[in-house]
Amino acid sequence: MWRRIRPQTCDSGESALAASRSTTASKPRARRVSAPKVIAPGRRVALPVRGAFLQPLKRVVAPRGELSVAELGDGLPFVPKRYFVIADVPSGKVRGEHAHKRLQQFLVCLRGHVSVLVDDGRRRREVLLDSSDQGLYVPPMVWAAQYGYSRDAVLMVLASAPYLASDYLRDYDDFLARVRRAEARRAAAGGTP
Amino acid sequence: MWRRIRPQTCDSGESALAASRSTTASKPRARRVSAPKVIAPGRRVALPVRGAFLQPLKRVVAPRGELSVAELGDGLPFVPKRYFVIADVPSGKVRGEHAHKRLQQFLVCLRGHVSVLVDDGRRRREVLLDSSDQGLYVPPMVWAAQYGYSRDAVLMVLASAPYLASDYLRDYDDFLARVRRAEARRAAAGGTP
Repeated sequence: MWRRIRPQTCDSGESALAASRSTTASKPRARRVSAPKVIAPGRRVALPVRGAFLQPLKRVVAPRGELSVAELGDGLPFVPKRYFVIADVPSGKVRGEHAHKRLQQFLVCLRGHVSVLVDDGRRRREVLLDSSDQGLYVPPMVWAAQYGYSRDAVLMVLASAPYLASDYLRDYDDFLARVRRAEARRAAAGGTP
Repeated sequence: MWRRIRPQTCDSGESALAASRSTTASKPRARRVSAPKVIAPGRRVALPVRGAFLQPLKRVVAPRGELSVAELGDGLPFVPKRYFVIADVPSGKVRGEHAHKRLQQFLVCLRGHVSVLVDDGRRRREVLLDSSDQGLYVPPMVWAAQYGYSRDAVLMVLASAPYLASDYLRDYDDFLARVRRAEARRAAAGGTP
C-alpha cells in the first residue's frame, strides 16, 4: 500500500512566508462569488496590406488579474514553432526592417506600446499595438518594421517556423523586385496584380 | 509592364513624424559596427519534481534592445497550440492551483517576477521566475500554482493543446489520489513508484 504523505515543504532556503503560501496554494479554495468577465475575441480586421490583419483576442478580467489568450482556431492563425520577445528597446530605435519569403508572424504587444509598419510593396500601413488583446498577423512577403517602442514595451512575436537565415529579405529593393515578379506571374496567369 | 511605385504614405491621421519614420524604416540601414551579443541557451536543469525542468533560453543583447528566443529543438519543449498571458495580478493573489491530466505547459516571466509552486504529489519546489531568458516546463500530472506576482509581472504560458475543461484537476485530493493510483500501476508493472 502507498502511504498517503503530505507534500514535502519547500527548499530550506525559502522563507516561512513562502512555505505558508505554498501550503495555502495546495488547498482547494472556497468558491468565489464574482465570476471572471470573459471578453470574446472579435472578428479579424483586414488591413489594406496584402494578407495582413488585426486579430482581437479573448480576454478574461478577474479579481485575480487579467489574462489574454489565443489558441489554434480561436485567434491564433498558425501553430508557432518559434517565439521571441523583444524588450528594453531604446527610444528612437527601429527593429525588424525585413520581409520573409515564407514565414508567418503574429505580433502581440503585451506591455506598453509599439508602432509597426507593414508594407506589401503597393500599400503600407502603420499599426499601433498597445494592448495584449490584439494581435497583428504579418504574412510572408510583407515588409515590416517596428519603432516608437515605449520604455516598458514588451513585444511577443510568434513565428510559424524555426529560424532560417535564407528566409529573410533584408534589402527593400530586393523585396520590391520580388513583389513585382510575383505580381507579373499572377497577371500572366490571369489573376489580379 | 508594372509601374514601379513608391509605397503609399501612411494613413492621413498619422503625424509627419510617423511618416518620416516609416520612410526611414524602409531604407536599408548602414551596417552597424557593434555586433549583437548572443547568449547561448544553457542545458535544461531538472527539478526534483517529476518531469519538471528549468530551461535557460537564448538571449540576444544589442543596442537596439534585448531579445529572448526559443524554438522547437532549441529551448521550446513542444509545439504550442495555445498561449495565454497573465498580467496585472494584485499582490497576494494566487493563480493556477490545478494540475493537468495531459497538458504540457511552458512558463516564461517576461517582465517582473513571480513564484511558481510545482508539486508532483511526493515532492514540491518553489521556483522564482524573474527573467525572460528562462522557462519552466510543467509536465502533465504536476500541480502548479503561481503567487507573489510583482506589480509589473507579465507571465507568458505556452500550452501544448487547446483548452479542454476535462483536462483540469482542480481538487488537490483528487490529484493526489490519481498520482497514487498511477504509482501503484507502475509498481505493479515492476517500475519505480
